[in-house]
Amino acid sequence: MRGTLIHAPGDIRFGQVPDPEIVEPTDAIVRIAATCVCGSDLWPYRGASPIAEPRPIGHEYVGHVESVGSEVASVQPGQFVIGSFFASDNTCPICHAGYQTSCPNRQLVNGCQAEYVRVPLADGTLVTTPDEPDADMIPDLLTLSDVMGTGWFAAVAAEVKPGMTVAVVGDGAVGLCAVLAARELGAAQVIAMSRHSPRQKLATEFGATDIVTERGDEGVERVKELTHGLGADAVLECVGTDQSMHQAVRSARPGGNVSFVGVPHGVNLPITELFATHIALRGGPAPVRAFLPDLIDRVWHGAIAPGTVFDRTLPLDQVADAYRAMDERQAIKVLLQP
Amino acid sequence: MRGTLIHAPGDIRFGQVPDPEIVEPTDAIVRIAATCVCGSDLWPYRGASPIAEPRPIGHEYVGHVESVGSEVASVQPGQFVIGSFFASDNTCPICHAGYQTSCPNRQLVNGCQAEYVRVPLADGTLVTTPDEPDADMIPDLLTLSDVMGTGWFAAVAAEVKPGMTVAVVGDGAVGLCAVLAARELGAAQVIAMSRHSPRQKLATEFGATDIVTERGDEGVERVKELTHGLGADAVLECVGTDQSMHQAVRSARPGGNVSFVGVPHGVNLPITELFATHIALRGGPAPVRAFLPDLIDRVWHGAIAPGTVFDRTLPLDQVADAYRAMDERQAIKVLLQP
Repeated sequence: MRGTLIHAPGDIRFGQVPDPEIVEPTDAIVRIAATCVCGSDLWPYRGASPIAEPRPIGHEYVGHVESVGSEVASVQPGQFVIGSFFASDNTCPICHAGYQTSCPNRQLVNGCQAEYVRVPLADGTLVTTPDEPDADMIPDLLTLSDVMGTGWFAAVAAEVKPGMTVAVVGDGAVGLCAVLAARELGAAQVIAMSRHSPRQKLATEFGATDIVTERGDEGVERVKELTHGLGADAVLECVGTDQSMHQAVRSARPGGNVSFVGVPHGVNLPITELFATHIALRGGPAPVRAFLPDLIDRVWHGAIAPGTVFDRTLPLDQVADAYRAMDERQAIKVLLQP
Repeated sequence: MRGTLIHAPGDIRFGQVPDPEIVEPTDAIVRIAATCVCGSDLWPYRGASPIAEPRPIGHEYVGHVESVGSEVASVQPGQFVIGSFFASDNTCPICHAGYQTSCPNRQLVNGCQAEYVRVPLADGTLVTTPDEPDADMIPDLLTLSDVMGTGWFAAVAAEVKPGMTVAVVGDGAVGLCAVLAARELGAAQVIAMSRHSPRQKLATEFGATDIVTERGDEGVERVKELTHGLGADAVLECVGTDQSMHQAVRSARPGGNVSFVGVPHGVNLPITELFATHIALRGGPAPVRAFLPDLIDRVWHGAIAPGTVFDRTLPLDQVADAYRAMDERQAIKVLLQP
């Protein structure tokens, strides 16, 4: 088949790669209907992690089941499915507690920027749509595989409840989805921190009530001004840098909640500040699987349309251009069609 | 009056000090019926924080209202009261959210190892007992001023719920009270980490179902063995060192909750580990005021008797001996009688 390999920072190549095969009887092969580039794909692209040899990349996918192993019972060839970037058994106590991305049997689903992908633990990982989706719904469904699921987790981990004031740090696709999640979960006020006009516009469409363009201390002050001097009840950190994390903690009210869903890079948590302010912290790779049934339902019935985070669509063989556009912030998020 | 001053690390002196006076119309003066030495008093005693000049010390108190300022409405002279170590207005949104120790108007109540103490914001801070307590209930009530309230917050901040598995790191008086709190909140299993026989005994009396004597990696392994290999649902960190915090985080199950109530000293939070395991964190100075009505009720009706954390009672003028006994771990906690 044809697929994507990252050879080195900045070096994304599309070409012939080995076909994925059923390895375990619990595997499924999915024929990719749409995939995309994740903000976290940009970390190795930008040289933040070593690349010893060319390797497959991409972990977001929707598509049709092509084949299944002998023990797979819940999905069958031809069905349209969505899965998380981490395969999970979905039967252990950790999965039952809603943390499928911490499942002791978890396995990364990798190499999705390709025509086909092998999904381990298919019964625990893949969720079918009620029917074959219309083509225009596919971008919405694709976001559920990671970016919308991650924005949702940001809101859930910060325990967003109806009536709350929420601030979102980060205006990438995840941050924008976090705005949408906060609105869906009933937040009374959603403050998006963004200084890029197209992203501000999308944040507003997704339910942001206020836009804060300032960063650092000034950004924190603006959030406090908008929240009766207190800080937000919940702050959703969707970047992963030391600066963004400190901004998030300082934007929360005493006793408030901060979630963090961007993979942390060089973050030093301010323990003394957390202690002094009673601010709670929960983060991690989003347990997307926990949210899929609910989020598929919301998309299917038109309650949410997160697919608008894709502001560019390219054929899969132009994947290198997709990385470049996102790296240079010319695009928020690029959808790729095999 | 007579009271305690700390002059330098290791140098506690009892003698004549100025009488406290009503400064603000919202103040009350409390005649101390009993006070005690806190684990956190040992930090300056051991030289962890600078002492520029002799200063009053002690922040735990129960006693009778001696006098009140002109604006105090909820307590009156003669009533028996308990208050938190932080005075708070108890009317602002932060207090209403249950974080009185983050109240924007908070003030430390200090100098309680004395005959009298000034309590600011008396209406927001002091809670009366239903009646004059019997002498033998005073140790129980005194614990509510800090140590039991702090153990309670450790359990609340880690969201202990009926049926949960709970581990408590630290066998000081706070850790022991945290065991009792976890039991009261319905934990199915309470693992106390302790290697001191008298403390193990008290932990068991307070409801510990298991004692783990190992520390570090071995302690973590033992907790996992006792919790089906997963780690505890909730871990209550009641020490405040880097070692104890890491032990707490590593003893929690993925997606579990860690609370921390010991003032952090030199703690580096393992952000990557927290991210990878979805473990939530909340800590801080316990908002004792939030729990006082409920805890007074539990003591009054005999549901809890946390006063047994006091394994020594001394007259207040022997306060220096009390510090020495606790510093040398000859006593868990010393009650002082003016």
